[in-house]
Amino acid sequence: MIDRKNILIVGLGLLGGSYARALTKKGYAVRAIDPKQSSLDYALENGFIEKGSAEVDPALVGWAELAVFALYPHVFVEWVREHGHLLAPGTIVTDVTGVKSAVVYEVQDLLPEGVEFIAAHPMAGREVGGVENSTDAMFRGANYIVTPTEKNTPEAIALCRALGEELGFAKVRELDPDKHDEMIGFLSQLTHCIAISLMTANTDPSLADYTGDSFRDLTRIARINEDMWTELFLLNKKKLVAEIDAFSGELNRMRTYLNDGNTEKMKEMMRVSTERRALFDKKL
Amino acid sequence: MIDRKNILIVGLGLLGGSYARALTKKGYAVRAIDPKQSSLDYALENGFIEKGSAEVDPALVGWAELAVFALYPHVFVEWVREHGHLLAPGTIVTDVTGVKSAVVYEVQDLLPEGVEFIAAHPMAGREVGGVENSTDAMFRGANYIVTPTEKNTPEAIALCRALGEELGFAKVRELDPDKHDEMIGFLSQLTHCIAISLMTANTDPSLADYTGDSFRDLTRIARINEDMWTELFLLNKKKLVAEIDAFSGELNRMRTYLNDGNTEKMKEMMRVSTERRALFDKKL
Repeated sequence: MIDRKNILIVGLGLLGGSYARALTKKGYAVRAIDPKQSSLDYALENGFIEKGSAEVDPALVGWAELAVFALYPHVFVEWVREHGHLLAPGTIVTDVTGVKSAVVYEVQDLLPEGVEFIAAHPMAGREVGGVENSTDAMFRGANYIVTPTEKNTPEAIALCRALGEELGFAKVRELDPDKHDEMIGFLSQLTHCIAISLMTANTDPSLADYTGDSFRDLTRIARINEDMWTELFLLNKKKLVAEIDAFSGELNRMRTYLNDGNTEKMKEMMRVSTERRALFDKKL
Repeated sequence: MIDRKNILIVGLGLLGGSYARALTKKGYAVRAIDPKQSSLDYALENGFIEKGSAEVDPALVGWAELAVFALYPHVFVEWVREHGHLLAPGTIVTDVTGVKSAVVYEVQDLLPEGVEFIAAHPMAGREVGGVENSTDAMFRGANYIVTPTEKNTPEAIALCRALGEELGFAKVRELDPDKHDEMIGFLSQLTHCIAISLMTANTDPSLADYTGDSFRDLTRIARINEDMWTELFLLNKKKLVAEIDAFSGELNRMRTYLNDGNTEKMKEMMRVSTERRALFDKKL
């Protein structure tokens, strides 16, 4: 339970819409701002927001006790720069942004006195975007990472963790922004780079006729929103380049063993891989 | 329907067991040879073979009208070298081996006059092995590739295709052994190398706490039977090395664009990836 009833969602896409659905179900008063009137209409018709505005309506912004931003990173920062002063003192602000260091400190600096930004990353998504594809089912079994800084109060951190639980995430964790970006550079951004490179590496059109499940699984995320991911990659450039290099080194190690016919070393890499993969099995 | 009733499975593991289940259900007489008596007992108790032998029983081998070999590649070749003479003239032999060029021609040469080997690759599997995990469900939606050579008769090719259909595969296709190995080098072997390298590239034990579905999907196949896959990789070395190099080149291209902040080129790669991935969606 969160002790704030009035929740404003800014950006009513896949994630914003899924937040709205989950929180309306739990009895909160959920309102939304999104430039697309059709997204607001969809949410109103389906009863998961009680009010919406395609403009930045000062009354609506001031009404919020908790504001959740589900925007592209640069749009989020610009929004706060332009409209942050409309947030009422005492409001808690959180987000869904997939990179943290490049956003968190700047937003904390931009917000007016008395408005606290506690950042979070819900690690959930789908290959399709838009409010029409939103569903709170995607939070089940997934991780929710809170990324506090020194500026955050224990109260705001606790509230943000409670939000993750209300949304239905399986695990709620804390990481500092830098460690978060390192983790996400490996677990999410590198894997997207790999999936993309797999799709562009071989252009034989007949391959789809022969594919098995493992290839489909590896490339599911190769269907990608290029605007969002290019932005996320560039905002985490240094860490992502380091992860690409570490991975390439390992792949090249396997290539060398293979080329040399070094059976023992190949098997050793596979044994390490098998053991380590067991740690990652989903615990629901 | 296949016009041969007596089917012998040699090697009663995950795949051999799954063949036995599917074919027994369809009314064929299925018998098996496997050195592990416990595997035979399991299949007998569960009613998906009618008879089994832990030895290479000449009467059992001679009984077969169709023999399916589900063994490691080198074990398969050795078996045929030692016991191939026990197969009755007129018998059709097929297999499940994951590489073809290194096996097909040799086995065709080793078999006695009148026994025809038509190779096939059922592109289905699980992360767990053994007859206890066998299930014909894994063939649904999957591909079955027949890889004929110039030595094969139209009758044997047709029978092998019919077998793929009887087993419940969604698509039955033909490829020559060389083309098969190229395809499998990319779609299956390269993806396994990637999954292994992802698991060995980062040894932070806390990562599992933060992982999302995309990482789990990419590394599902990182839990790997090191004996079998090392053998399969080495038997397809030249093609696999070429696929690793093509993939590494694309990943490095993304790294360069990222490092240079080349937004347009990054987006272009992602657009190509997205378009191409759409071809691979499962059509059931």
